[in-house]
Amino acid sequence: AEMEKSDLLAQFKQTAGKVIKCRAAVAWEPKKPLDVCEIEVQPPKKGEVRIKIFANALCHTDIYTLDGHDPEGLFPCILGHEATGIVESVGEGVTSVQPGDIVIPCYTPECREHDCVFCQNPNTNLCPKIRAFQGKGVMPDGTSRFSKDGKTIYHFMGCSSFSEYTVVAEISCAKINPYADVNKMCLLGCGISTGWGAVFNNCKVKPNSTVVVFGLGAVGLAVVQAAKEAGARFIVGVDLNSNKFELAKKLGAHECVNPTQIGDKSIKDYLLGIEKWGYDYTFDCTGNVKVMRDALELAHRGFGESCIIGVAAAGHEIATRPFQLVAGRVWKGTAFGGWKSRTEVPQLVAKVMRGETTLDPYISHFFKGIEKVNETIDALHSGECIRAVLQISEREPVEAPKVTTVSSHRHFNGYVKRMKHFSKVNNCEMQFSIYIPDRKGRTDK
Amino acid sequence: AEMEKSDLLAQFKQTAGKVIKCRAAVAWEPKKPLDVCEIEVQPPKKGEVRIKIFANALCHTDIYTLDGHDPEGLFPCILGHEATGIVESVGEGVTSVQPGDIVIPCYTPECREHDCVFCQNPNTNLCPKIRAFQGKGVMPDGTSRFSKDGKTIYHFMGCSSFSEYTVVAEISCAKINPYADVNKMCLLGCGISTGWGAVFNNCKVKPNSTVVVFGLGAVGLAVVQAAKEAGARFIVGVDLNSNKFELAKKLGAHECVNPTQIGDKSIKDYLLGIEKWGYDYTFDCTGNVKVMRDALELAHRGFGESCIIGVAAAGHEIATRPFQLVAGRVWKGTAFGGWKSRTEVPQLVAKVMRGETTLDPYISHFFKGIEKVNETIDALHSGECIRAVLQISEREPVEAPKVTTVSSHRHFNGYVKRMKHFSKVNNCEMQFSIYIPDRKGRTDK
Repeated sequence: AEMEKSDLLAQFKQTAGKVIKCRAAVAWEPKKPLDVCEIEVQPPKKGEVRIKIFANALCHTDIYTLDGHDPEGLFPCILGHEATGIVESVGEGVTSVQPGDIVIPCYTPECREHDCVFCQNPNTNLCPKIRAFQGKGVMPDGTSRFSKDGKTIYHFMGCSSFSEYTVVAEISCAKINPYADVNKMCLLGCGISTGWGAVFNNCKVKPNSTVVVFGLGAVGLAVVQAAKEAGARFIVGVDLNSNKFELAKKLGAHECVNPTQIGDKSIKDYLLGIEKWGYDYTFDCTGNVKVMRDALELAHRGFGESCIIGVAAAGHEIATRPFQLVAGRVWKGTAFGGWKSRTEVPQLVAKVMRGETTLDPYISHFFKGIEKVNETIDALHSGECIRAVLQISEREPVEAPKVTTVSSHRHFNGYVKRMKHFSKVNNCEMQFSIYIPDRKGRTDK
Repeated sequence: AEMEKSDLLAQFKQTAGKVIKCRAAVAWEPKKPLDVCEIEVQPPKKGEVRIKIFANALCHTDIYTLDGHDPEGLFPCILGHEATGIVESVGEGVTSVQPGDIVIPCYTPECREHDCVFCQNPNTNLCPKIRAFQGKGVMPDGTSRFSKDGKTIYHFMGCSSFSEYTVVAEISCAKINPYADVNKMCLLGCGISTGWGAVFNNCKVKPNSTVVVFGLGAVGLAVVQAAKEAGARFIVGVDLNSNKFELAKKLGAHECVNPTQIGDKSIKDYLLGIEKWGYDYTFDCTGNVKVMRDALELAHRGFGESCIIGVAAAGHEIATRPFQLVAGRVWKGTAFGGWKSRTEVPQLVAKVMRGETTLDPYISHFFKGIEKVNETIDALHSGECIRAVLQISEREPVEAPKVTTVSSHRHFNGYVKRMKHFSKVNNCEMQFSIYIPDRKGRTDK
């Protein structure tokens, strides 16, 4: 926290424990533009954290709710769930974050309690601890922290990050590297993480496999990118909008198909014309239950897996002949890519910071100022948008401590490097040595 | 083969290459009793094997076809696909079996060819090599080996074992231990193997897990038995016929439920009342698509798996809300339990012969003589039947070579045993030593 301008921390000390008046984009009712107005944000209660939001990327789930398609959607509410922020103050008993920490609020919490069968199981991230309250638009004590002129405003997905300040549960707060680029890392709060995780966690895509991705929005593109990283030999992207194909190919797709441009052939027949027994992994990133069925039936006979990522419209059901499963296909789905939020989102941030993957291609639009919130919505509707990031508060530039190389020499298939840096703990310049082995290539023995 | 009475092998030499006239149970048309009459069986062509059938167990799939429910069912045909027999003669190029070998004809073949993506993949057994011909009721050259008075009779599932003699593809012939009890091992041709394999291969049921089995026929009971062997801590059997419960409990079920005897509660609510988040593994052995949905939705949130084993009626589809999969449930199915037929069915026979598992509880009815075939059908319809075995030809008693223990002493957590046996190869008594380590218990470190 030391690298934040001391005046920000000083300001946080002033507001801690008090109601904050700030601007938020309020959804008063479905199908109306968001209303940017002043609201009151209560201080965090026990186990809660108040966050000053830096940036928020718009996700289709926000729009789905705003457009009134979610029968459980509550109004008025504050949308937004792909964000970065800085902890302003913490409630009683909060120990895992403190004011000044940079965080990503996560709609999937991770309580880490010894008796949580989900947190204790390595194969799932679906901690149910505060699920019921999130669904009701309130905090775990049953009340909201948002109001305007005495009128209660509901929370949304436990995040509500279309606001200058929000309150979330401590168990929803992923503390990330303080030197992370907050305008970029907000993307890891939902869509991109979900696409990556479907590949790495839910399907564990193997090298040399074949992959079909239905829907080339941010999630589908993230699936393409991760499948490429996993070593898939043949990745096909499918979308009704051919404008998506250039970026899909840049991220790793070998072929892209527009189902409206293959003549009389169904997309199923077209794709089975290339791989007659189907594909090792297929992903639905459309939310269309008919596409989900096609995806399943395009999975390889005997062992192919199909993963549902898209959110279907309320009441819609998936269907197929049971023979499709008896013939060896596996039907599964993912929620937030299977990532355990507090543990693994910081690791994804670190992966991006190490340069092992990139978020840059996803940010097609960037707006400054919460008053531009409806422009981000227009952008997402335009069909030209992958992700529109809205900067809600500008962060003072921070610079990571410099580590410079003093010497470097080759040693046993790697390098021994002598590095120096300024240690704030010891208040002096210090040196250390590190051995970095050569990176293994795929073809190395 | 040496242990078969030499007159049987001599007789086979007489019939090899010639048409055999023998009795078979012919299904001339749907919904009629089987007609036991004399037919002609052609000699095996290239890659084919002619088998004298010893015993055949009746499976519901035979009845499903006989009752006219299979829209692709062909008549007249010879049903039967759970059998044991002895090779009478082989066609050109057959090398893996020879006259006198004891075999189980398998409806799932295993070609083992280097370019078969299914045989070369350890995760599937669905070799498609002769699938199209099996579906059309003919051998791979497009013709049938069965006829009566010049009228062609179709094959069924590549087995047609309700006949004194049948012809199958070499790649469908699992050669088993010649000392196996042929009246028992026929059960490994379909149902029991399928139930066991769903547990061991498709779901890989883990120790300490919870399991629900819908349908306690032979397949469901085999699932119960295998789940118990796999170390499941809580196994629930569900059936509309409470008479099945005693055997289910004997085989490992901890609780059995009759959905008609739980008052107003749905079976789903009843079972979620015991395990609130669902069960680690659920199995449908009913073929009812509504039950398949219940089974899926009863799989544990986050990581539960549901496996479809039952064969659904033609045209029926499974359905659920996609959210069920997004919430971590996995929907899969099994065909013949995932066993690679020629490689693994002999291993199952060996497992039974070693006493590590048993087939005895499944054989509720035993009939001698092919003329009793319609009595086996009546038995299966009675509701009291698990498996009705029909002995078609009696096998001369065979005795396995005796191996006796000369000495046995303790050595490093095991025993060194000196054994003696009569070697037919060397035509003298021989001795060998073997070290048998103690069996590891579940709680051993």
